[in-house]
Amino acid sequence: MHVELLIHADWIIPVDADNRTLVNHSLAINDGRIIAVLPRQDAVAQLNAATVVELPGHVLIPGLINAHTHAAMSLLRGLADDLPLMTWLNQHIWPAEQRWVDPSFVADGTQLAIAEMLRGGVTCFNDMYFFPEITAQVAAEAGMRLVAGMIVVDFPTRYAADADCYLQRGLELHEQYRGHSLVTTAFAPHSPYTVSDTALMRVRDLANKLDVPIHIHLHETSDEITQALKTQGKRPLACLDQMGLLNPHLMAVHMTQLDDHEIVRLAATGAHVIHCPESNLKLASGFCPVMKLQRAGVNVALGTDGAASNNDLNMLGELRTAALLAKGVSGDAAALPAPQALRMATINAAQALGISANTGSLEISKAADVVAIDLRDPHTQPLYHPSSQLVYAASSHQVRQVWINGRQVVRDGAVTTLAMDSLLTRVQAWQEKIAAGDEALSIE
Amino acid sequence: MHVELLIHADWIIPVDADNRTLVNHSLAINDGRIIAVLPRQDAVAQLNAATVVELPGHVLIPGLINAHTHAAMSLLRGLADDLPLMTWLNQHIWPAEQRWVDPSFVADGTQLAIAEMLRGGVTCFNDMYFFPEITAQVAAEAGMRLVAGMIVVDFPTRYAADADCYLQRGLELHEQYRGHSLVTTAFAPHSPYTVSDTALMRVRDLANKLDVPIHIHLHETSDEITQALKTQGKRPLACLDQMGLLNPHLMAVHMTQLDDHEIVRLAATGAHVIHCPESNLKLASGFCPVMKLQRAGVNVALGTDGAASNNDLNMLGELRTAALLAKGVSGDAAALPAPQALRMATINAAQALGISANTGSLEISKAADVVAIDLRDPHTQPLYHPSSQLVYAASSHQVRQVWINGRQVVRDGAVTTLAMDSLLTRVQAWQEKIAAGDEALSIE
Repeated sequence: MHVELLIHADWIIPVDADNRTLVNHSLAINDGRIIAVLPRQDAVAQLNAATVVELPGHVLIPGLINAHTHAAMSLLRGLADDLPLMTWLNQHIWPAEQRWVDPSFVADGTQLAIAEMLRGGVTCFNDMYFFPEITAQVAAEAGMRLVAGMIVVDFPTRYAADADCYLQRGLELHEQYRGHSLVTTAFAPHSPYTVSDTALMRVRDLANKLDVPIHIHLHETSDEITQALKTQGKRPLACLDQMGLLNPHLMAVHMTQLDDHEIVRLAATGAHVIHCPESNLKLASGFCPVMKLQRAGVNVALGTDGAASNNDLNMLGELRTAALLAKGVSGDAAALPAPQALRMATINAAQALGISANTGSLEISKAADVVAIDLRDPHTQPLYHPSSQLVYAASSHQVRQVWINGRQVVRDGAVTTLAMDSLLTRVQAWQEKIAAGDEALSIE
Repeated sequence: MHVELLIHADWIIPVDADNRTLVNHSLAINDGRIIAVLPRQDAVAQLNAATVVELPGHVLIPGLINAHTHAAMSLLRGLADDLPLMTWLNQHIWPAEQRWVDPSFVADGTQLAIAEMLRGGVTCFNDMYFFPEITAQVAAEAGMRLVAGMIVVDFPTRYAADADCYLQRGLELHEQYRGHSLVTTAFAPHSPYTVSDTALMRVRDLANKLDVPIHIHLHETSDEITQALKTQGKRPLACLDQMGLLNPHLMAVHMTQLDDHEIVRLAATGAHVIHCPESNLKLASGFCPVMKLQRAGVNVALGTDGAASNNDLNMLGELRTAALLAKGVSGDAAALPAPQALRMATINAAQALGISANTGSLEISKAADVVAIDLRDPHTQPLYHPSSQLVYAASSHQVRQVWINGRQVVRDGAVTTLAMDSLLTRVQAWQEKIAAGDEALSIE
């Protein structure tokens, strides 16, 4: 049988239902889709491949999915660290955004973010930012899978004047990318405290009608809860519940403040939680009770958040932090074992994003979103269990080859779909402008 | 004026008293020591260098110091993860150590650890393991700075039969390396629960007589406290205090269980704390109250612990985890800012180890233990504050050049002092033997 691409690797972790690690297996790809995962000797005997890639010492995994980010904010990476949350937002991030965020900021910031993510084995990201049509265009051109956020906030920006206007632009984006091979959409109302109930209920109706997910920041800090109790008399999750927004469309991001009743309610309604451990640590937001959520049956995925509060978009690092932190927070060294952490960054995320029929695992008929990681570096040797090395010891520079829809977007560690030199020159120009505008900025 | 080596870099973070970041500066080195840190234009005008190294886009920092590890345990990296502490120790780590730890295990494991540490910008490590004379020999040959632990435990191993015997071998090691340019020694009684009070008091007297530090695991888990209360009627720190062991020689490692009185006592006595955030998370040991300790005036340094409970020896990663976790645990996003985190991995560690006259900062007359990190990667761009990028975004593969005592031990990312191919072949052989012996082991 003829195939276009055949990849031989020492190990394949398909992230299947049994959490298997396949030894000396091969992945066969035709028309951008996986058509077989089989023992190497069978592949060699049965398949006649146009291109053969030999990856000794490598493990193949499904492309990682960054289930919550603000890609364009990569241009604000490290602008203002180690500050209390409100100083950070009010004196640095928001003024910089108000001054600089326009289509060219989003284009350059998103390209920079995509370059970093592709090099780190991320093949899909769930984005929330202004000018998502630019994000979508940039991602599609770079061969990157994207769930583009149809952002909604009540306040006016250069992108839109009011909630109706945001929704209108979002719906146009949704229409434009219907049936696209890389880009899907999700509603992205920023949070219950920046979006009115009226707008949230319109989002609910539209999400039901169009069958798309809803991506929202929720219960990020204790202050958010306190404020909601003051102004609404209820916790934000209860407000969403009352409006009928707790359902399998909902991706609730952060969720550091949760009582047992809320966890049961999330599980019962099929809502998803997106855990952002590094951002929650860096902004001192609190600890998401990942183990309690998983035990209750809630689907939990992982995201980096934006590069202004992380400060990288490295999902291998986020995996590791999630696995370590879950142990520390639960007091159980057996909590969130490596294969489970990997699921959170792949299949769980695909399920939350509504794209699990197409990606999130290396299984027949899914898109060939594939990452090859070289485990021969000294810091991933010796090697007793590939999934342990991957989660607890591997670093993103060991990602050597990446395919999305069967197209090779990283070759030997270099992004093939972006002009890196000119991109970095534009990033430098942004840096100079933004630094000059950040009044509080002074060289340390 | 003639100098041997002159390094020009875009930024130098000397880790001096003012936490300065120097822009466009140069470092001049003679006889393995720093003789000047000066503006580039002055260096070019005044100095005539035999070797000039140009590092555009790089930041120079003092070599990182790993203040607590068990280097040879790199051979057990990932052998048994995601297990409860006592299962991990009793069924995997201790049986493997009992069966395999001998001089050749220590030699190969230490070489692997040194390769990883050098590539990650670590120029010194504080080690606790059996056969420290092998560790010392391997480190000296690799050009690596070491504080070799004169290990003491009550139980017999292939290395020594009883506490007296351990001490005797340690003292011989101390004598052998007196005045060595790379290797110093510290007493390394494993913990209060594995070393008798009699032996601890001998260690105290010897440490005072020889003026060397004491390196001990202390208050790692709540179980350790519970057991001590049962058997001794006191918390372990109180026992050490009573024996006169709380003093500036003491490096207390882990310290996840501390009450306010103990923090005051540590500060008053000048004892040092070695914080191992990733190991404490991975083994679910608890959270070291780093901010409380620092506010009380206790010197806190950083370590990775061994690769069996981390699973890497990456101090840049440990820095980042320490800075993030301190914020999460204290609930203050301004806690442990980047420059402070960097101090914990450099000058604070040098102070704890008693070698701060010689290393820990880039200052005149200190040894040239220097690390150059290339910040031009997409994930460290744009760059507003070098120390932020270093702590929150840089990864260990961006370490490009490393000098110890002025000798270049990493050139363009490759270790110059170890034969990597043959080392990795030996590591593979250990992997096969150890995996076969680990009865509980089965491919996932």
